[in-house]
Amino acid sequence: MRMVDLIEKKRDGKELTAEEINFIIEGYTKDQIPDYQVSAWTMAVFFRDMTDRERADLTMAMVNSGDTIDLSGIEGVKVDKHSTGGVGDTTTLVLAPLVAALDIPVAKMSGRGLGHTGGTIDKLEAIEGFHVELTKEQFVDQVNRHKVAVIGQSGNLTPADKKLYALRDVTGTVNSIPLIASSIMSKKIAAGSDAIVLDVKTGAGAFMKTAEDAKKLAHAMVQIGNNVGRKTMAVISDMSQPLGYAIGNALEIKEAIDTLQGNGPKDLEELCLALGRQMVFLANKAASLEEAEKMLKEVIHNGKALEKFKQFIASQGGDPSVVDHPEKLPQAAYRIEVPAKTDGTVAEIVADEIGTAAMLLGAGRATKDSIIDLAVGLMLNKKIGDSVKAGESLVTIHANRDQVADVMEKIYANIRIADHAVSPVLVHDIVTQ
Amino acid sequence: MRMVDLIEKKRDGKELTAEEINFIIEGYTKDQIPDYQVSAWTMAVFFRDMTDRERADLTMAMVNSGDTIDLSGIEGVKVDKHSTGGVGDTTTLVLAPLVAALDIPVAKMSGRGLGHTGGTIDKLEAIEGFHVELTKEQFVDQVNRHKVAVIGQSGNLTPADKKLYALRDVTGTVNSIPLIASSIMSKKIAAGSDAIVLDVKTGAGAFMKTAEDAKKLAHAMVQIGNNVGRKTMAVISDMSQPLGYAIGNALEIKEAIDTLQGNGPKDLEELCLALGRQMVFLANKAASLEEAEKMLKEVIHNGKALEKFKQFIASQGGDPSVVDHPEKLPQAAYRIEVPAKTDGTVAEIVADEIGTAAMLLGAGRATKDSIIDLAVGLMLNKKIGDSVKAGESLVTIHANRDQVADVMEKIYANIRIADHAVSPVLVHDIVTQ
Repeated sequence: MRMVDLIEKKRDGKELTAEEINFIIEGYTKDQIPDYQVSAWTMAVFFRDMTDRERADLTMAMVNSGDTIDLSGIEGVKVDKHSTGGVGDTTTLVLAPLVAALDIPVAKMSGRGLGHTGGTIDKLEAIEGFHVELTKEQFVDQVNRHKVAVIGQSGNLTPADKKLYALRDVTGTVNSIPLIASSIMSKKIAAGSDAIVLDVKTGAGAFMKTAEDAKKLAHAMVQIGNNVGRKTMAVISDMSQPLGYAIGNALEIKEAIDTLQGNGPKDLEELCLALGRQMVFLANKAASLEEAEKMLKEVIHNGKALEKFKQFIASQGGDPSVVDHPEKLPQAAYRIEVPAKTDGTVAEIVADEIGTAAMLLGAGRATKDSIIDLAVGLMLNKKIGDSVKAGESLVTIHANRDQVADVMEKIYANIRIADHAVSPVLVHDIVTQ
Repeated sequence: MRMVDLIEKKRDGKELTAEEINFIIEGYTKDQIPDYQVSAWTMAVFFRDMTDRERADLTMAMVNSGDTIDLSGIEGVKVDKHSTGGVGDTTTLVLAPLVAALDIPVAKMSGRGLGHTGGTIDKLEAIEGFHVELTKEQFVDQVNRHKVAVIGQSGNLTPADKKLYALRDVTGTVNSIPLIASSIMSKKIAAGSDAIVLDVKTGAGAFMKTAEDAKKLAHAMVQIGNNVGRKTMAVISDMSQPLGYAIGNALEIKEAIDTLQGNGPKDLEELCLALGRQMVFLANKAASLEEAEKMLKEVIHNGKALEKFKQFIASQGGDPSVVDHPEKLPQAAYRIEVPAKTDGTVAEIVADEIGTAAMLLGAGRATKDSIIDLAVGLMLNKKIGDSVKAGESLVTIHANRDQVADVMEKIYANIRIADHAVSPVLVHDIVTQ
């Protein structure tokens, strides 16, 4: 088999066999096929697309390029949730204990990574004593006993995807549905879950700018999952403004606690229920999405979800009293209000730019070596559709420095106040096949 | 300027500026832009094409990537002829003296290269004493005095094209009209001619398999030439069978002599006149193509063309008596006939396979280090449309070995005899703008 023939086959719009796709991915991973051939091939894929079968085969070729996580020691159906990335996204912190409270195993492998705020592990480390240094055996045992545990990423998962993504990034083929879908799905499948719930973000702050593109991507990922034997569903949710009020590590822990008690931001609760009911349904714990949602609401109202959060924190060495006393979480030295300059209705909160404002305070990593300040961040006081009077606070800045002119400027530049009513939409669509 | 942005611009169907195209070609030539970005870009060009302006700019960027030949010391309009490559193509050997006989300067830079037979220089070296070791000054002087001279390729012409072609060859983007057209035209322009006549081959033995594709390529090259200030015309000629009868180095010299006397194969003469009249017209020696053709026929009939060939040979150290005594050319030890197995009409002579049969005898180079046997080759005794009786010779093999079963087998496999009449076409089209 010669790579140039496979490039030409795809270029001419023909379907590659599983064997041919494996040849490409295995050869590339082992440095037997050079970058310049793979980049020409990915550009041909960009123009010619891939069939459902090719997408599934590409995904599995990338899964098989490295280690896979064996979760077979955990009882029950392991459902993983993945978000395509947003700002102030506290859903994982809420969903892990919420779903575990219904005896669904949540075996979460999470990262730190770059971004506006830290990763899930960074956020949880805002709780004193909490740690993720578990052995593989402790992790499995923890999930079996408490239904929820979090560890850091380990092993060499999907090296082909890492290499391919780095190449696509510099050769103009990031924005290709089959390549994005297989990249995301390969990582989730290598991480060992039985079923996958996807939160595909759309809007200015998201990778997919339109709901239509987001739906295409969601459909592609759900198809791949189902074609390779992992039940998969997706929610298409809005990221034209940050989710919830909090953007920051300790701030989001506090927000998660509120939400687990039924006192969280309306949009965050709505999205957690939309994603949670799919997780419950895919775990075979409910006969319908409606029943699943009822079950989730019940454990919020009867306190079991909050109780599960405490148990989870304690089981990983953390101080569970933060749940009842969130003032024990790291606190920033300064709270600075950002007053509205005019009356009106909030019409736009540019999510990624507001996220960057939080990062300027130290809430996230700009580079791998940045040190996160877990206390700092932003609390939105107004969201899209809220009316506001001049002088009222739009945002509260939680800072460990007293000069925040740069942050204020960024906030003002990215919150637009209109003189007419605006209705936000949160959940755009549900994709189940 | 970032290469990834230019890849995406072309990917999205937008037109690149001259500055952007220069950035790509200059950066690639200087190893500042890696192969993997250029291969993604060429694949995007494959799908999105280039405008006439982009094609001209790409051509000139490649011309400017290396040396260019200065022919300004030669009086008159220098017209170059280029063929996209065929089998048994003796046109250059005929056209050089033929056109020079009309006082049009022919300053031919030629190569040896790989192929079914040698290059023009190899063929001319079948004449005892002929050599191409001329200094630049001798070359210019020779053309000014005798109107015709041939030297070997020198200088670092179009290094960008060499690098780009090698990359395209392994990344599935050879077959792209704007890239083929700019590649060919950049080499011709760097070689310094004022006007260019193109012989675009079509058919089974050619790169362009259909007359339609050949016409697209011809049109693209003529446009580029005219857009960068070099008058350009093209002939689209058939290569579904070898041109003329001879395939071999000394054999083609003999055939050129015949043709310069008006006794050559009909198809070779027809194509030489079709190309030659464009050369004469572009050199401003005739007011119309018809007048140009008349002038060419005249110098064939009055012996001036043949006389010019003798003068050309003598001026480069060769023995001009071969023209009157072609038996002085290298002769193969064996002549073996290939008799037809059935009666009928010759319907197909697969040009490139017949060329390969000649190469098996040693007429051409399979690798750079192969040594050519100038004496050997094939003489076709029948061409498409000729009727044949079983036992009549289809081909005479000129060999320096007595066992030629491999060559015979290849010939039989690639000459088809039908039981119905067949009419070959030689010149498919003329492209003048």
